[in-house]
Amino acid sequence: MSSISILGLGAMGTALAQTLLKNGHTVTIWNRTGRRAEPLAEAGAKIAESPAEAIAASELTILCVVDYPAARAVLTQAEGVLAGRDLLNLTNGTPGDAREFGAWLAAKGATYLDGGIMAIPPMIGEAGALILYSGSPTLFERHRKTLDALAESRHLGDEVSLASLYDLALLSGMYGLFSGFLHASALVTSAGGKAADFLPLLQPWIQAMSGTLPDLADKVDSDMHGRNVVSNIAMQKVALENIVRASAEQGVAPDFIEPMLRLAGGRIDKGGHDEDISAVIEEIRQRK
Amino acid sequence: MSSISILGLGAMGTALAQTLLKNGHTVTIWNRTGRRAEPLAEAGAKIAESPAEAIAASELTILCVVDYPAARAVLTQAEGVLAGRDLLNLTNGTPGDAREFGAWLAAKGATYLDGGIMAIPPMIGEAGALILYSGSPTLFERHRKTLDALAESRHLGDEVSLASLYDLALLSGMYGLFSGFLHASALVTSAGGKAADFLPLLQPWIQAMSGTLPDLADKVDSDMHGRNVVSNIAMQKVALENIVRASAEQGVAPDFIEPMLRLAGGRIDKGGHDEDISAVIEEIRQRK
Repeated sequence: MSSISILGLGAMGTALAQTLLKNGHTVTIWNRTGRRAEPLAEAGAKIAESPAEAIAASELTILCVVDYPAARAVLTQAEGVLAGRDLLNLTNGTPGDAREFGAWLAAKGATYLDGGIMAIPPMIGEAGALILYSGSPTLFERHRKTLDALAESRHLGDEVSLASLYDLALLSGMYGLFSGFLHASALVTSAGGKAADFLPLLQPWIQAMSGTLPDLADKVDSDMHGRNVVSNIAMQKVALENIVRASAEQGVAPDFIEPMLRLAGGRIDKGGHDEDISAVIEEIRQRK
Repeated sequence: MSSISILGLGAMGTALAQTLLKNGHTVTIWNRTGRRAEPLAEAGAKIAESPAEAIAASELTILCVVDYPAARAVLTQAEGVLAGRDLLNLTNGTPGDAREFGAWLAAKGATYLDGGIMAIPPMIGEAGALILYSGSPTLFERHRKTLDALAESRHLGDEVSLASLYDLALLSGMYGLFSGFLHASALVTSAGGKAADFLPLLQPWIQAMSGTLPDLADKVDSDMHGRNVVSNIAMQKVALENIVRASAEQGVAPDFIEPMLRLAGGRIDKGGHDEDISAVIEEIRQRK
């Protein structure tokens, strides 16, 4: 069993501490406000009086606070004890945040692993939870057994920003799904239908369409958007125009659909008429 | 076995004709340009010289042309034979197009069924193809066995516009999925990753998130967006802001993510802070 400190006791930090206690680890906790620590102390956690005391107490410290400025503020109170320490940061932020934080910690002599939690707090320790990691592979291997009890663990590489990038990429996929669901539900309910009654059509359809993603991914990776095209952008643009027109008829604002129509049109204007819908990616990565 | 005429021999009309021939039906075909009819004629189809001849030849006529103006132009050539005929229209359009076309056909004395094909041509007659129908239940029941050989058949009601509406709602769901996939792939590839390598993370994640749709659908149907909220809009807005910030860092344009961020912000401004993401639907249906 290991000794782990948790800095930050929001819903997620609390779930992590509970799961580690359940797995028999020695858990030390610290929170900016003391109030949330008491139920965990009753379950066996030790309460530290400061971030420095918490970090000094354990082999691994997990940081789980609201954002990177808060993370920096917490560790600044413990600068003197950071050298030689293993730090796992599960705070949400961008790849740039993770890189900057990693450089700051490296200068203090700490070993840094960044993580992105693909789960909500009640899923921690349960099947289906996934945590993406990037940064120090040594730290990851040293604490892997402890981490595997929290969720399925996936180490993406030693570049610290990767966990954040892939976390936000997965969330982008989720918000795309939700955008489509909300637009579809607005159409169906505008005609008196129920969103719940529509789901038995939508869910298998989404699963079937998800089966076309490997082909689109190959087109993205090879930049060969014109190969084996069943339904070209020009045909798909007609469907997108029908969706926008139907939305106007039904009193539904086209906000979620309009970007795909506009970007598909932009790609066609550049000669992409016969390409697959994958080619639209070129319209959003041109600023690089 | 029945006699069926197909008007319009694009990729979809051809696939329908081929499948009906394979099932032993008597198939009569007509196309604006003759060229596409020959391989079907070799497979046993009869070629009609006009839309009127095709419609007069069969118990059921299936119209599968590029759009509603084309559908109207084709049937205008056959106005004299429409009375008492069974017409199935599989042309893509909006609910309003279907309603208008249905009224026009009713005035001519024809019986009208509208359909939306949720499949690409090679899927016709294979497992996984779905055709949505609305309009005359009598026509649907009379030809149901013939139609079931083309795809799984789902009759949505006698209001002719429903097939088109649900068709476009399903496509909206698909374009949401594709939007999320393309944004995610742009993020991953901006850091040197491969879209194909990312899919083994994305596909199970999409399936898991699709499992949250029944709860969101209940919230949409009940207008109770504040019930049992795990992750409220305010928290999700922070994640959306991180995606937009990360996209800027990585040189990816935020077009696909920006609507959800903007609409979530609009709902929060109206007091929706503690609601679930389902509440964003109120921001797109306000124009009703």
